[in-house]
Amino acid sequence: MRKQLQALRDAMARHTIDACLIPTADFHGSEYVGRHFACREYISGFTGSAGTLLVFPQWAGLWTDGRYFLQAEEQLEGTGIRLMQMGQPGVPTLESFLRSSLQADQTFAFDGRCVDARTARRYHTIAKQVGARINLALDLPGEIWMGRPPRSAQPVWALSTQLAGESRQDKLARVREAMAAEGADQLLLTSLEDIAWLLNLRGDDVACTPVFLAYLALTQESCHLFAQPSAFSPALLDQLDEDGIFLRPYEEIYRYANQLHPQQTVMLDTRRVNATLLTSIPTKVKVIDRPNPTEAMKAIKNPTEQANFRKAHLADGIALTRFMYWLKTNAGKAPITERSAAHVLEDFRRQDETYLQPSFDPILAAGPHSAVVHYSATEESDAPIQAEGFLLADTGGHYTTGTTDCTRTYALGPLNSQQKACYTAVLRGNLNLAAALFKEGCTGSNLDYLARQPLWAMGLDFNHGTGHGVGYLLSVHEGPQRIHWHAASTREAPLAPGMVTSDEPGVYFDGAYGIRLENLLLCVEEEPSPFGSFLSFETLTLTPFDLDAVEPTLMSPQERALLNTYHARVYEAIAPHLPPEEAAWLREATRPLP
Amino acid sequence: MRKQLQALRDAMARHTIDACLIPTADFHGSEYVGRHFACREYISGFTGSAGTLLVFPQWAGLWTDGRYFLQAEEQLEGTGIRLMQMGQPGVPTLESFLRSSLQADQTFAFDGRCVDARTARRYHTIAKQVGARINLALDLPGEIWMGRPPRSAQPVWALSTQLAGESRQDKLARVREAMAAEGADQLLLTSLEDIAWLLNLRGDDVACTPVFLAYLALTQESCHLFAQPSAFSPALLDQLDEDGIFLRPYEEIYRYANQLHPQQTVMLDTRRVNATLLTSIPTKVKVIDRPNPTEAMKAIKNPTEQANFRKAHLADGIALTRFMYWLKTNAGKAPITERSAAHVLEDFRRQDETYLQPSFDPILAAGPHSAVVHYSATEESDAPIQAEGFLLADTGGHYTTGTTDCTRTYALGPLNSQQKACYTAVLRGNLNLAAALFKEGCTGSNLDYLARQPLWAMGLDFNHGTGHGVGYLLSVHEGPQRIHWHAASTREAPLAPGMVTSDEPGVYFDGAYGIRLENLLLCVEEEPSPFGSFLSFETLTLTPFDLDAVEPTLMSPQERALLNTYHARVYEAIAPHLPPEEAAWLREATRPLP
Repeated sequence: MRKQLQALRDAMARHTIDACLIPTADFHGSEYVGRHFACREYISGFTGSAGTLLVFPQWAGLWTDGRYFLQAEEQLEGTGIRLMQMGQPGVPTLESFLRSSLQADQTFAFDGRCVDARTARRYHTIAKQVGARINLALDLPGEIWMGRPPRSAQPVWALSTQLAGESRQDKLARVREAMAAEGADQLLLTSLEDIAWLLNLRGDDVACTPVFLAYLALTQESCHLFAQPSAFSPALLDQLDEDGIFLRPYEEIYRYANQLHPQQTVMLDTRRVNATLLTSIPTKVKVIDRPNPTEAMKAIKNPTEQANFRKAHLADGIALTRFMYWLKTNAGKAPITERSAAHVLEDFRRQDETYLQPSFDPILAAGPHSAVVHYSATEESDAPIQAEGFLLADTGGHYTTGTTDCTRTYALGPLNSQQKACYTAVLRGNLNLAAALFKEGCTGSNLDYLARQPLWAMGLDFNHGTGHGVGYLLSVHEGPQRIHWHAASTREAPLAPGMVTSDEPGVYFDGAYGIRLENLLLCVEEEPSPFGSFLSFETLTLTPFDLDAVEPTLMSPQERALLNTYHARVYEAIAPHLPPEEAAWLREATRPLP
Repeated sequence: MRKQLQALRDAMARHTIDACLIPTADFHGSEYVGRHFACREYISGFTGSAGTLLVFPQWAGLWTDGRYFLQAEEQLEGTGIRLMQMGQPGVPTLESFLRSSLQADQTFAFDGRCVDARTARRYHTIAKQVGARINLALDLPGEIWMGRPPRSAQPVWALSTQLAGESRQDKLARVREAMAAEGADQLLLTSLEDIAWLLNLRGDDVACTPVFLAYLALTQESCHLFAQPSAFSPALLDQLDEDGIFLRPYEEIYRYANQLHPQQTVMLDTRRVNATLLTSIPTKVKVIDRPNPTEAMKAIKNPTEQANFRKAHLADGIALTRFMYWLKTNAGKAPITERSAAHVLEDFRRQDETYLQPSFDPILAAGPHSAVVHYSATEESDAPIQAEGFLLADTGGHYTTGTTDCTRTYALGPLNSQQKACYTAVLRGNLNLAAALFKEGCTGSNLDYLARQPLWAMGLDFNHGTGHGVGYLLSVHEGPQRIHWHAASTREAPLAPGMVTSDEPGVYFDGAYGIRLENLLLCVEEEPSPFGSFLSFETLTLTPFDLDAVEPTLMSPQERALLNTYHARVYEAIAPHLPPEEAAWLREATRPLP
């Protein structure tokens, strides 16, 4: 048995805990977590980005999703932890397992700061049903973790109004209006992207997301930022002070919440606020459970952010196009692997001075790896890239001018007709969705058919969403909009002018190959009509699709025109920034199809 | 002031009622109501098919929708009843008006049998908020209505299993299974279509809907049908008796509900059950509020119903095509009006021996009338049909083999390029939706874009749904599916194999002209694929689109192929049933576009 698991069980025994849950989470519900928060990895040895560990004295299991079945199986071997394959037939959900395993009078523990209040409420219901108790107050992994990395406290820096397009005072005023409209005296913000957006601040405490650890409490008169003082320069503190924003110690938010006046009304989002924070609020305080007003505001990029997004995509397009040239020229001639190619692409991106860091772990997947939707090459899996089949590259960057996310699938050798037919179908879906013209009020579920139709007509499909929102130098995945034919369980957010959303159909054949093509789309307004307001998309991403993989006879004349128009835009924008030889190649790579 | 309104106010005074609501409804939430139930028309003089009257001692108002603004304005003149134009700026909803008008300690009355339980619950909430009382027990119009037509009790007849495709025993067994799955001891059914479907019975008590007045109470052991004995022949009663169905007097359902055992669990749909019936159930009885299981069952047509639907559409296609020939040949030559043309079409339909009656009031609208979505020609409005512009004909029939609903817009003279462009856009939307191939689980909101895209691309739109379900010799409008890009407020029902749904895009220019093209589509399964189950549509309607209104250069080659394939099917199916001259004309009317 893994010794960290034994140590955890010893700690459970000391505290008379009968079941302990260890999620993959920081205190803010972030998509990625910093090293300090990697408790689940420390206890289990499983390194994937998603998974929840449930430990009893005699049994332990790790729930994770299809992306990680193989990896988790290997990494959990010999640990004494059972892999629970989520969504597979016969595998109970964590909650149903908990309901059937937890006994009356037992105590179930988790660190309440690492579980959102809504999920915690369901655990409470389960405990109540079986007559068990819940303990939110223990950080058991913390008690036993020797050499735990300290909490990240990287320098916080200000995004100039020139880059952000709206001052923090103006943003605060808008949020205070939204609070007043809901009758809220206080807004408690815990989502790191929302706090960073609202204050025009950025940091580096979370992998691939330039945010900083903080909580925020806003009233009509005051703004308290609970963060790590060591991350703030005196100059920045002065700037914040001028704007009426007062820094308080990071952990103090819990005491602040506990001292709220019983007659106050607090607005917060229980999907984002952690359970400990919610339970710190006196029960007499009225809580309004709403999506944070910042969520919808930050999704609508202002004109400055839109203009900047275009700049980021020009820079990214140059890097991606140079990478494509390098790849298509060198594959099969020089020794290249998935990881070495990723470094080359990263180097191309670094040549732009506004580039900061990857916006997510790059996916470069050769051959059969391309069929694994969230493949990430490890030292062991790293495959050579040869002059055959496909290379799928899904990568993105944070620039001071915005965030990119692009997938291209490159033909590295001759393709058979099925491969070309599939590539062409995915391409047609991508182009047709990008060409949508639609009534204001439409959601992604109204448009998803456009991206899937060419695949569905062949009896094919892909098991992921077609589009996600993209933050401005924040998380590469943000809401509230998305593109998926499944209507979201909650009320879906309409696509609105200023939103940036990905367009990424794909198709995957296990063990053989996968294809995905992704551009980012900016939602824009059409000319008004007496019949209503209409919207469409401007494609931000600027790098060629691989014509070597296209079968033009499978495209309609309109679809070929869409591709040719896009390629003409790419050439015009990118060629002036390339060395002559690469520009000449680009002209050929973006040639119009007849 | 209208004397019926005065009489109502006198009755209100006698009963010390301060406000009285009179909806357009029978006791079953039917879409159309019989003459006996036309209380709102009797009191107000307004003859439209939708509207709710609210009467105070000093004020009375009628809420109705855009279809009826003009008609209601004329008919309400001098009555003392104010027209409340629903959805217009500044016009309060009935409920918000009620909330602000009703005073503490006043009594608000409506016949609880004419209001569904869910709506009544909202009225109760309003009354509670303002401290008023509610009286459900009075039929005030009934007290004053001299010469009220008796309740319809037309003969009930049995639909043979050969026509219905499933015996009533088998249907009852399926519904009883659904009850058991929900843990329900009783099912109370009040929707006339659901009762008719379940028992394979039909009647003629509601306009345009071959159903009969009835309630039904089902347990695992018994089936009580509360209906009008005079409508049943002895032979039919014997047949029902054999199947364990016992007839009880129509009104007795309320006493039956009142005598339910407190330990019983009753399943019903509060959107359909009337308020009086719900309140008749003892409060200790557990009520499970669910859509009636029959709703989803009757939406899926079984193989026999599907085959019959095709027969009904062949018969209807012959009538519609002969009508088109007659219209295109005679317009401008003989004196024809909207109403006389409707009679001609009805006569063509009557030539088929399986034809029973119209499935809704026919809409034949010439010239500017075609821009009125729910136009119905009255004696006063009846317009001559001349050799110019468009005639829009939206009509349908009930056949013993199923129900039809078809809209065609005919060119009666030369059209300008804008008219042709609009007709072609509507046609493309109709054809593209009918050609959809989609994943099992898709709803109408996933597909609606196909029907609207050609219009949206021109900055045009239409303000109605694209598709509604169609019953089998029941209501021409049925749920639970629909086609509209607005996600339904409640959970939307996916399109499923066996459902029949209309496909009816349109475009309307006030005061000028309107175009709508409607076919019925049967949802069918595609060949299974490893990527999932896929569905598509079979077009049931068989009559030409008017090629005189089509601009072929505005269609893609694929769209022209869809039209040509459809027209070839129409010719092949219909021509053998036409006189030679008409068949020759049909060949030309269905000629393939190059």
